[in-house]
Amino acid sequence: MNMTRIDRLIEAIERTGNPTALGLDTRVEYLPQEMLENRTVEEAIYAFNRGLIDALSDVVPCVKVQIACYERLGVAGMKLFRDTLLYAGEKGMVIIADVKRNDIGVTAEDYAAAYLGGEAIGGEAIKGEAPFPADFVTVNAYLGTDGIAPFLAACEKSGGGIFVLVRTSNPSAEEFQDLIVQGDEPRPLYEHVGLKVARWGEALMGHHGYSSVGAVVGATWPEEGKRLRALLPRTFFLIPGYGAQGAAAQDLAGCFGRDARGAVVNASRSLLCAHKKRKTGDFAAAARDEALRMKEDLRAALHI
Amino acid sequence: MNMTRIDRLIEAIERTGNPTALGLDTRVEYLPQEMLENRTVEEAIYAFNRGLIDALSDVVPCVKVQIACYERLGVAGMKLFRDTLLYAGEKGMVIIADVKRNDIGVTAEDYAAAYLGGEAIGGEAIKGEAPFPADFVTVNAYLGTDGIAPFLAACEKSGGGIFVLVRTSNPSAEEFQDLIVQGDEPRPLYEHVGLKVARWGEALMGHHGYSSVGAVVGATWPEEGKRLRALLPRTFFLIPGYGAQGAAAQDLAGCFGRDARGAVVNASRSLLCAHKKRKTGDFAAAARDEALRMKEDLRAALHI
Repeated sequence: MNMTRIDRLIEAIERTGNPTALGLDTRVEYLPQEMLENRTVEEAIYAFNRGLIDALSDVVPCVKVQIACYERLGVAGMKLFRDTLLYAGEKGMVIIADVKRNDIGVTAEDYAAAYLGGEAIGGEAIKGEAPFPADFVTVNAYLGTDGIAPFLAACEKSGGGIFVLVRTSNPSAEEFQDLIVQGDEPRPLYEHVGLKVARWGEALMGHHGYSSVGAVVGATWPEEGKRLRALLPRTFFLIPGYGAQGAAAQDLAGCFGRDARGAVVNASRSLLCAHKKRKTGDFAAAARDEALRMKEDLRAALHI
Repeated sequence: MNMTRIDRLIEAIERTGNPTALGLDTRVEYLPQEMLENRTVEEAIYAFNRGLIDALSDVVPCVKVQIACYERLGVAGMKLFRDTLLYAGEKGMVIIADVKRNDIGVTAEDYAAAYLGGEAIGGEAIKGEAPFPADFVTVNAYLGTDGIAPFLAACEKSGGGIFVLVRTSNPSAEEFQDLIVQGDEPRPLYEHVGLKVARWGEALMGHHGYSSVGAVVGATWPEEGKRLRALLPRTFFLIPGYGAQGAAAQDLAGCFGRDARGAVVNASRSLLCAHKKRKTGDFAAAARDEALRMKEDLRAALHI
């Protein structure tokens, strides 16, 4: 087995001193207008993604690629998604495929195989690598263990990992996630999900003390983040919501664990659209400046 | 606007007298071995899907295509998925893309546009139809209204619909879905989700008294199905779990509403693998026989 990806992620964060993911939620309207000249939409987005990866891969350890932006572009978009994953992999970045997939049984196996790799399909017909190769995928746990177990099996085989939606960053997250569940110790639904995530992860613990089964915890909810951190000491958190969604570095500091480890913070629009804010055509340099600013912002909040 | 798809679905069910969906969860191992000779996996699956659609489209009104089986095959699989949707559309079947997507804001808009159609992307760059055109998509509501509203907007524009996961058919569905939520009237989480589904659907009511916002309700839970039917009189149900997953017709009769309407029952493996059980190479004829048997089974249980 390869090195467990959660250990690889943790070591890449240590090396760069930067617990950040570049969120490639790339939409065509984020690109400098001139990039669209004489190119298809897919070619333009691929050039933009490569430019960002080239400019950031030495300072940002991880990339989170939001599949919806690519799925919207159809079959050509899915090829662009694959090409982007492959390019980020070549440049040594740890890859999170943000797909939020969920299903049961053989269907969940299919999803796991699509991103984390799996068995041969149809005997000799197709073998080996995942068609959309990633180190981690995001998943939704509403279906319970039946929906997660196939991903756990794929993690065990491939060394990959998952991030399970626990507490999301959006305003209406509270509608279901905060509902208080009856019991000896009444607690919100998202804590039930979080505790299950910890249990699913017990058998997949990495060398650095964090499991391959992580949690998505929105940065816009500092109190919930702190509480989940205490409840789930060995669960690595993927934190969306920094920057454009409104969360500041001190809001999410409580999501980090011992030694300021245990979490990676995603930023998408604030990096992808940095060139617009700074009114420059050099989107890559603008993104790099913003990434370095974000790094210092996080490090200050984490006292590292 | 086209005719609302929920009305189209209801009318197609009336016309065929058969509230059934053909579940194209097509895996290569379901195919007769000889279909794989001199064909790629994708060509073989496409030929199999077309054969089933041709054999069933006059007696089964609806097709549910499980995207995971296609996603697992990578970019070529996504083309196969699109081709299958287009073929089923040409043959006049109502199409449910079983994708269980979930995200928020512009990302959810992307998913909605991918399946239900949407606005131009990048000005003049891309216009019109959905790249993976379906009448309905399945969605997961864990993120709350923020994750559903973009789909509602797409439904309003396109006439399409969604089926929201409420109570799934798998054994571990109970882990979260059955948790009892505190309140004046304590009730399980899935009822909270169901009530929200009804509210989301209020503004999207079709001529036949059912909303474009439907619910996925597993057939393996007859008591829950009956209770949800009473609670959500104007919500159309998509019912998986018949056949291979173990539910019988009388188990799911309670999910149907007034006049034995209000639900469509999916069958996948029992149709796709009928040729194996009947030990025949003629998969299409075997599936048709099984579809007609299932129709009579359902009609008997529904007393129609």
